[in-house]
Amino acid sequence: MHPSRWGDPARAASLPESARGLVEAVFGIDERPAATDVAVPPPALDEAVLDALRAAVGAEHVLLDDATRRLRTRGKSTPDLLRQRAGDLSDAPDAVVRPADHDQVAAVLALAVEHRLAVVPFGGGTSVTGGLVARREGYAGLVSLDLVRMKRLLAVDHTSMTATLEPGLRGPEAEALLAAEGLVLGHYPQSFEHATIGGFAATRSSGQSSAGYGRFDALVVGLRVATPRGELRLGSAPASAAGPDLRQLLLGSEGAFGVITEVTVRVRRLPAEKVYEGWAWPSFEAGAAAMRTLAQAGLLPTVLRLSDEHETAINLARPDAIGAAGASGCLMVVGHEGEPEPVAARRTAVASVLAGLGGTPLGEEPGRAWAHGRFDAPYLRDAMLDVGVLVETLETATFWSRVPQLYDAVRTALVGALGEPVLVLCHISHVYETGCSLYFTVAASGGDDALGRWQRAKAAASDAIAATGATITHHHAVGTDHKPWLPAEVGELGVAVLRAVKAELDPTGVLNPGVLV
Amino acid sequence: MHPSRWGDPARAASLPESARGLVEAVFGIDERPAATDVAVPPPALDEAVLDALRAAVGAEHVLLDDATRRLRTRGKSTPDLLRQRAGDLSDAPDAVVRPADHDQVAAVLALAVEHRLAVVPFGGGTSVTGGLVARREGYAGLVSLDLVRMKRLLAVDHTSMTATLEPGLRGPEAEALLAAEGLVLGHYPQSFEHATIGGFAATRSSGQSSAGYGRFDALVVGLRVATPRGELRLGSAPASAAGPDLRQLLLGSEGAFGVITEVTVRVRRLPAEKVYEGWAWPSFEAGAAAMRTLAQAGLLPTVLRLSDEHETAINLARPDAIGAAGASGCLMVVGHEGEPEPVAARRTAVASVLAGLGGTPLGEEPGRAWAHGRFDAPYLRDAMLDVGVLVETLETATFWSRVPQLYDAVRTALVGALGEPVLVLCHISHVYETGCSLYFTVAASGGDDALGRWQRAKAAASDAIAATGATITHHHAVGTDHKPWLPAEVGELGVAVLRAVKAELDPTGVLNPGVLV
Repeated sequence: MHPSRWGDPARAASLPESARGLVEAVFGIDERPAATDVAVPPPALDEAVLDALRAAVGAEHVLLDDATRRLRTRGKSTPDLLRQRAGDLSDAPDAVVRPADHDQVAAVLALAVEHRLAVVPFGGGTSVTGGLVARREGYAGLVSLDLVRMKRLLAVDHTSMTATLEPGLRGPEAEALLAAEGLVLGHYPQSFEHATIGGFAATRSSGQSSAGYGRFDALVVGLRVATPRGELRLGSAPASAAGPDLRQLLLGSEGAFGVITEVTVRVRRLPAEKVYEGWAWPSFEAGAAAMRTLAQAGLLPTVLRLSDEHETAINLARPDAIGAAGASGCLMVVGHEGEPEPVAARRTAVASVLAGLGGTPLGEEPGRAWAHGRFDAPYLRDAMLDVGVLVETLETATFWSRVPQLYDAVRTALVGALGEPVLVLCHISHVYETGCSLYFTVAASGGDDALGRWQRAKAAASDAIAATGATITHHHAVGTDHKPWLPAEVGELGVAVLRAVKAELDPTGVLNPGVLV
Repeated sequence: MHPSRWGDPARAASLPESARGLVEAVFGIDERPAATDVAVPPPALDEAVLDALRAAVGAEHVLLDDATRRLRTRGKSTPDLLRQRAGDLSDAPDAVVRPADHDQVAAVLALAVEHRLAVVPFGGGTSVTGGLVARREGYAGLVSLDLVRMKRLLAVDHTSMTATLEPGLRGPEAEALLAAEGLVLGHYPQSFEHATIGGFAATRSSGQSSAGYGRFDALVVGLRVATPRGELRLGSAPASAAGPDLRQLLLGSEGAFGVITEVTVRVRRLPAEKVYEGWAWPSFEAGAAAMRTLAQAGLLPTVLRLSDEHETAINLARPDAIGAAGASGCLMVVGHEGEPEPVAARRTAVASVLAGLGGTPLGEEPGRAWAHGRFDAPYLRDAMLDVGVLVETLETATFWSRVPQLYDAVRTALVGALGEPVLVLCHISHVYETGCSLYFTVAASGGDDALGRWQRAKAAASDAIAATGATITHHHAVGTDHKPWLPAEVGELGVAVLRAVKAELDPTGVLNPGVLV
């Protein structure tokens, strides 16, 4: 199994026959096996540095072997995957270092400053924006700071309904620890099975149930962060007017300001009931207007998603997704989680609004189909690359009044840059009173210059997003891929502020160099 | 009428006879008239500087007269009032400068840098934490940047439900402009009638209806800020993962990082119905537990307040506050605003929870009485100072599990520092899933060293707050009064980060020097 592939090797697969036929009809099959048995460049660190790292975290937690370093090379963006598949392992870390706790993280950072090592904090490795591709020029070496040993539930406060988690916990691990306390975090990005608590915080992640539970940045009430200048402990109250909210400066800092070593989150009681159902809409516009009505009426369900006509049609080609009810137009998934009585009340109220606005209920089958496959799409991407088809996603958000303009601009940019045949699918998965996100999935043949083709398409889409005044990313962070568009969003002065904060917390620039700022 | 007094001179009054009797019984009457006819120090700015300021904003908007400068001297904290009443006008600005728009603000800041003028942004002048007491040593002069001319509603987006407001709009002015569009902001701090949009943003204000509408920092979706280094425009989407949220770094920056010149806020439709009602609880603890239950069930009303036994008893002494229903224990005010149908549904659901937890409904009379007098308390404070009684408030917030400890610690500190006779009243006025605010009102005789007595009491309470790990302020900002306790809250490193941001945006330190950091 190629190390660039997503997730659990046992669940990786070649393209299912049903999908293969569709791909062949649209793009043609162009087998592109990944390069194998490529050697990782030898570690560049000298023994004295390695001994110091061993003294800090234990000898068995400084790993130099090829397999470990290969798996910590870059993340899961299309450029990351294509480079790795082509045998380019030039970004491999010299060592993978696994601290046990906050103090060991601090010790590694001190060594990094002393020996001028670039440090890339590593959680689930699922970045899709080049967040794990640190610059190594000018450094004595590059260390992957793997937080895999930091997996404790440090504290639970059942009265305040908060829990303090270590950053290395993957989504399901965190939920299992909380479930044993009768609690739930409720954060389910598509990367849920692999991504970690620290990564959720460092990238301002958002999940499929964030309409109900809140974005990750809204769930965080406290942070502990190790920086080369010392420790930050933030979060003295649910809300405060004691100056700017520094938590919001560390959330989204992508390992460039410090290493998040503890995250205190708001938790809820485990839901007794979960129900997901489908609704059909005559158009994307009508469905989006219904979502806006719900958000502005304070009637948001736990899950609320709407596929455009193109995405709905692709789903219709998979009979398990829509079922016999058969929908035309656009499919919406509406989910409610919680205690039976409020779930029933909210379900009735939401259904009444949706029916009144022209929605057609499709029952629970489409909702179940969505819930069943909700974490599977990334596996399909690897299988598509095997047959020469690029599949990538990008996302943005804007205010409601600009949604039609943003949708058209991004679609036009992608179709224009990639040329036919191309599939551009879109859904709305996060809604707010004032606006929503747009999440695009793109499929196109890769050809002989798949990386160049994708980079041009991504740039065209990003230019379109910036020209519309929308955000370059609603929940995938800046990384290295979005950096060129950050000044358009926060201004050169905003970027200068971020650089000033970095200079204060990481004066020698050892943390994730080149990422974010 | 003394210029230190609160608000509308027509509504100022001496102590009502009913209250005078109570004050005489508890503290004794000790007439302490404010010093009058005190001269303001002459303006220290030379004509060249004044001419440059006149060229920037118009000659008629550079004011040097005593009356105008006296009214821009400090804010409304007890130390501010006592100093002003004692005839100390040493903090009076040399000039009051009134820019018309963002560009004129930027021009004034450029002149401030050129001529080394300290600039104090001035909105409603209602700071209770020394936010308008800038340091003038080391500066060629001190300018009050009065935003009184910046009162436009710049944009309304009825689809996205946002509005862009200028910073000089007072609460009622902003609401009147929005009401003409059928909209409401819903932000009602006790200073509502005088405080401004810019001040709400710069201090992370919270209002009496923030349970329903949200704190001001949660209402803001966009900011435009003039700084000595140029302009910041922030807020490209309802939510973003494009790095740290810089809006949250400017919110609460108290004029020390820049001057907020535009605020884009989330708005709601004007409520068709408003209903406020009273509930009685056997104890503060029981009422607080009911609030926590509502917050954690996602059932928050628009207004939710709970007075402790001491505050309830004082209210009982005023027959208009509780009415014939007669309550013992603690009074809770519950308010619902919105469309009739959801208001009715929520009112029923909330009442069912409260009754189930042991609350006794008191009907609408106590709610009406609260709503009637909700902005009046600051007037009473001046009348109390006239008879030698200090009345001041302070507030904090913490997580639910620490509320009893925080309540006891602050009460004990205040009683200990001031000695008997002293009244310490408390209410909870802001609740969250994970915790709540505590708002204390203190009354004690001032004696011959009222300022010293209050400063010692405030320090004791602040030490108690910090020792409990709570926030030094939930909605009144840092100013100069809370600065000594900021390092306990965000660490020396957190303060260093704030200083680094200030150094980037205001490298010569002309903005509100000495405030916040």
